[in-house]
Amino acid sequence: MIDGEQLLRFIDCLGSYGRLACGGIYRPVYSGAWVEATEQLTRWMEHAGMCVRRDAAGNLWGLIEGDSPLPSVVAGSHIDTVTGGGQLDGAYGVLAAIVAAAALQRCHGAPRRTLEVLAFCEEEGSRFSVSGWGCRAITGRIKPGEADGARDAEGVSIGDAMRGIGLDPGELPTAVRKPSEIAAYLELHVEQGGILEHMQVPIGVVTSIVGATKMQIEVTGRQDHAGTTPMSLRRDALVGASAMVVAIRGVAASIGDPAVATVGKLYIEPDQINVVPGFVRFTVDVRHAGREGQLELVRRIGEECEKVAEQHQLQVDVRVLRDSAPAPMHPDLINLLSATAQDAGVPYALMPSGAGHDAKGMSHICPAAMLFVPSVDGRSHCPEEHTEPRDLVRGAELLARALERLCY
Amino acid sequence: MIDGEQLLRFIDCLGSYGRLACGGIYRPVYSGAWVEATEQLTRWMEHAGMCVRRDAAGNLWGLIEGDSPLPSVVAGSHIDTVTGGGQLDGAYGVLAAIVAAAALQRCHGAPRRTLEVLAFCEEEGSRFSVSGWGCRAITGRIKPGEADGARDAEGVSIGDAMRGIGLDPGELPTAVRKPSEIAAYLELHVEQGGILEHMQVPIGVVTSIVGATKMQIEVTGRQDHAGTTPMSLRRDALVGASAMVVAIRGVAASIGDPAVATVGKLYIEPDQINVVPGFVRFTVDVRHAGREGQLELVRRIGEECEKVAEQHQLQVDVRVLRDSAPAPMHPDLINLLSATAQDAGVPYALMPSGAGHDAKGMSHICPAAMLFVPSVDGRSHCPEEHTEPRDLVRGAELLARALERLCY
Repeated sequence: MIDGEQLLRFIDCLGSYGRLACGGIYRPVYSGAWVEATEQLTRWMEHAGMCVRRDAAGNLWGLIEGDSPLPSVVAGSHIDTVTGGGQLDGAYGVLAAIVAAAALQRCHGAPRRTLEVLAFCEEEGSRFSVSGWGCRAITGRIKPGEADGARDAEGVSIGDAMRGIGLDPGELPTAVRKPSEIAAYLELHVEQGGILEHMQVPIGVVTSIVGATKMQIEVTGRQDHAGTTPMSLRRDALVGASAMVVAIRGVAASIGDPAVATVGKLYIEPDQINVVPGFVRFTVDVRHAGREGQLELVRRIGEECEKVAEQHQLQVDVRVLRDSAPAPMHPDLINLLSATAQDAGVPYALMPSGAGHDAKGMSHICPAAMLFVPSVDGRSHCPEEHTEPRDLVRGAELLARALERLCY
Repeated sequence: MIDGEQLLRFIDCLGSYGRLACGGIYRPVYSGAWVEATEQLTRWMEHAGMCVRRDAAGNLWGLIEGDSPLPSVVAGSHIDTVTGGGQLDGAYGVLAAIVAAAALQRCHGAPRRTLEVLAFCEEEGSRFSVSGWGCRAITGRIKPGEADGARDAEGVSIGDAMRGIGLDPGELPTAVRKPSEIAAYLELHVEQGGILEHMQVPIGVVTSIVGATKMQIEVTGRQDHAGTTPMSLRRDALVGASAMVVAIRGVAASIGDPAVATVGKLYIEPDQINVVPGFVRFTVDVRHAGREGQLELVRRIGEECEKVAEQHQLQVDVRVLRDSAPAPMHPDLINLLSATAQDAGVPYALMPSGAGHDAKGMSHICPAAMLFVPSVDGRSHCPEEHTEPRDLVRGAELLARALERLCY
């Protein structure tokens, strides 16, 4: 049904906004490249016959008015990127929704339910220490004063960045959508992992977006001279932290899929070649598709760290920085997406999403669900991010057919 | 023999040059605080009857002319400090030599051998990426162009820093002393470790300054999304590096004292909470008092890292950045220092020095030896660095008696 060539052209074209000389894309929210990308999207949406509006957060909505007063169906994803990201993460879901909406109008004319294509302004958290900013504006989960608190690396607040492109942070509450207005939210996305490729299945129907706990662990030992302190008299914070990193991997592996735990950031004091480290702080990113598994993982990581600290005569401080429970996708939509794939003769796998997505936030106000297409070599958040064109087109086609079932 | 009160006053006074508001001292070579400290030292040396000169590197020499043409005896240490260091590291050895020389002159008049008190301009390497700069100037081990290569954090080259205080880097070769001119070099220093305190012995006679190898280990895995990559598909560079850190500690502990190995610096890419680290670089500081033990330690650390890398499907690159063999102190001087302690009824321990000192460089051109006094709680290179006053005075008294034996 969809125009696959157009989809691939759109992807390439949008990928030129924020393209870095060294490869990859950086299109942070409210930046020049981001503004130009939204202007391009607006033209494409209008050309597809949509009525386009920008809400107070900068989310872009393209509307195809339905001929009934029923709550609308929303499809989309985000258009910001991480630093040096690929051209598919987020953008693919937005562009596929535009191409799908255009195909539906072409084939069937006006829908029964209003169809809204949504380009979230921000999801990645790569410019400001806010993530899911666009979705939180829509679901009413931005805290008072947050726009003036978060600053980018150059000290610009999110509020000033908004004002710079003609948005008024004081108007943010007007971006909120009521649960009664939206019947369903569908998001098509690249998997960003290697499971579909590994299974040789071209479509994933997401059952749940994992719960994520961000932990911070501080290890305090004693800073000592690297030459004059015998091994037996040391309380080396890095040796202890290293034993914890190894133990944390062991805990996640022993619980088994879909449990994952990652130590991604690690800070040492004083970080000098000839000084025994006295202090180490590191983060643990814990994820699980089930809340019980998630909580068990967090608990056992804390216990292992305490045990290692005791063995090495170190002090340890384990704390949870942020925690979100898994977000199950709506059963009716999971069934609808599965049936759509089945009817199209496309093999699919039911799978959790290990990454967070706008669909997780949207599930707070409406039924939500997601489709995944395979990521070559499981890569994402890097210039090498790639999905085979036939997989991209097949994903968009299934999105169109699912929207057809929901809106017509 | 010595004026202990004067020694303690000198230490307190010199400690006021470069004192930081937050505690500790920072007196980097050629800085304002360093210049004022050398001016103060010059006044004290002149007051003790010495003829004072500054050589082309800024090393300060206080001379008490002997009445024979025999090679002279040199005693001293350095006057620069690490950032936030204590008032004893280096300074103590210089001030004790001044007080000892003054006492010898007062008791015995002119010596047979010329006695030279030496304040090395730089030893710590805390401002420029050069260390032992003063000693290397004296022993002829500064490389051509080195003065214009090394820069401090503000981009000032060591050559420009020298010119700024009236020193000409082109004149550096004139600072070289011939082996035939110096009969012995003695250095009194705080231990900077906890061995003497642990043994409850007030004096250490250093048998050897450890050989040190600085290694750099690079671990390459694969950068992956922390949510979407199952544990079994990961090649996590930090998990591998952590297993190596634990293994390195094990190697040093299994070889036993005086082997030490320290991972002090560690760098992660991309260092993001939600990304599996793809690359880790860390340093290993390896020390041993015996060359064979040192080489075994380096070899086994390399082997352990290779083994861990293979287990974790990582690539590892192990390289030696710098390597110096242990420097044995001169047996005659070890005997002389031991006999001096014994005759004074002071218990002493023969021990290696785990830290590098100017005596290591000086041993390239003349017989060298060192005395240690205990460091409370083994602390050094920090504001808490402390040695009990009675131990400071006892150390200086033994230095005076050893110089008495050598010069009179």
